Amino acid sequence: MCAARPPQQYEAIADYLRTAIRDGVMAAGNVVPSEAQLCEQFSSSRGPVRQAMATLRAEGLISSGRGRRSIVLEAPETESFEEILSVTAWMKAAGINPTAKTQLVGRRPAPADVAAKLEIKEGDPIVTVHRLRLADGTPMLIERIDLRMEAGRHILGIDTDTDSVHRTLLLNGIDLNNVSRTLTAVPAPEEDARLLEMEPGAPLIDLEIRCFTHAGTPIELAEYRYRADLISLGMNSTRGNPSPLWVRTRL
Amino acid sequence: MCAARPPQQYEAIADYLRTAIRDGVMAAGNVVPSEAQLCEQFSSSRGPVRQAMATLRAEGLISSGRGRRSIVLEAPETESFEEILSVTAWMKAAGINPTAKTQLVGRRPAPADVAAKLEIKEGDPIVTVHRLRLADGTPMLIERIDLRMEAGRHILGIDTDTDSVHRTLLLNGIDLNNVSRTLTAVPAPEEDARLLEMEPGAPLIDLEIRCFTHAGTPIELAEYRYRADLISLGMNSTRGNPSPLWVRTRL
Repeated sequence: MCAARPPQQYEAIADYLRTAIRDGVMAAGNVVPSEAQLCEQFSSSRGPVRQAMATLRAEGLISSGRGRRSIVLEAPETESFEEILSVTAWMKAAGINPTAKTQLVGRRPAPADVAAKLEIKEGDPIVTVHRLRLADGTPMLIERIDLRMEAGRHILGIDTDTDSVHRTLLLNGIDLNNVSRTLTAVPAPEEDARLLEMEPGAPLIDLEIRCFTHAGTPIELAEYRYRADLISLGMNSTRGNPSPLWVRTRL
Repeated sequence: MCAARPPQQYEAIADYLRTAIRDGVMAAGNVVPSEAQLCEQFSSSRGPVRQAMATLRAEGLISSGRGRRSIVLEAPETESFEEILSVTAWMKAAGINPTAKTQLVGRRPAPADVAAKLEIKEGDPIVTVHRLRLADGTPMLIERIDLRMEAGRHILGIDTDTDSVHRTLLLNGIDLNNVSRTLTAVPAPEEDARLLEMEPGAPLIDLEIRCFTHAGTPIELAEYRYRADLISLGMNSTRGNPSPLWVRTRL
């Protein structure tokens, strides 16, 4: 259920500034226009302008003002929600040609660990998709997706080599509202290493993604295992803004 | 220069709600009070309440409303700017006893790669600190810090086994306003593996941190190398909010 709600004014202002920063119209090191200037430019009161600035600050695009004018930060990149959900969307945004080789697709009883993370009973039916994902023809990651039956049943009929799992879910009205990601690095097991054409034991970056509905129901559990030598992750943070990333010990 | 600016109203509201969520007063799955309720509770107009909600959404603490009431998300964690900068602050926040064993502290001419990232000339003097950091006595990461001379000179006189580098910089008025982080995973070289008491070649999570002043000058370049089996990273993201994390290919 993608609500086709019109954007609020602060979102429109934030979108405009985000695009200007991404396209280099507002370059790194430049001072962001003052609140008064932005209010005039967008025929807006202070509230939406301040809210737009707070949004860009939380995204690491501009510095915290702390009484001074904000400036545009370096390397201001953000990812869209679509790019988090979909390897295809992410690769396309990066200018890469995405392809997929399905290793497994089907329904099975949920093992205990998957059932716990999907908040269903052990043995309840789930739909599982394993795909090798290639970037411009180079094996880059292995994608392992487990879906609750009410979402997964829409996947059983598609060609997972060519069709998008997430687009299919969206088209069928599955409400993916928010995700929680956990990142670790692990040595590549033999089987993963063979698929990814790398040395066994060399590092993989393992990204676990739980996708929830608006009501907080976990619909999807995905594990992405990337060849660590082929990706990096990054983030800007500014003083005065708590960052959404956490680093947790596993002592 | 830590400006002791009073918080804006939206920040006070966001802080209050953030604490309520972190302490479980507002539990995961619960509906966030309506704008009208929050306006009444904080004697506020709509603007600051909306700005506070946008801030919490960007931090992954509450779902995107999209016309419906927002709910509190699971595992709502955030990190403070201090916890990003300081291993000591981060470990203390995690309830861990932090210690340090200095491997090297001193001044040296900047190598080309460090000079480029600090935007100084190759051979310009920098201050370098290498420390093994232990968590409750267990070797967890190796910290390698390079500082521009104007910041680093304050470090040369302290005991880096017991004194905080970042606290020292702050006390000396060094303005660390924002950071850019890049994460990769690498196989542990012999020397790192020996210090961290792990197998050579097993995965390390490598976090590079560039710290900038408000004006955009890079003051510090830090490399944290964590035993990958001892940490994980995580993040919540909600539909409609671009996430500040990016995943970049290194094809």
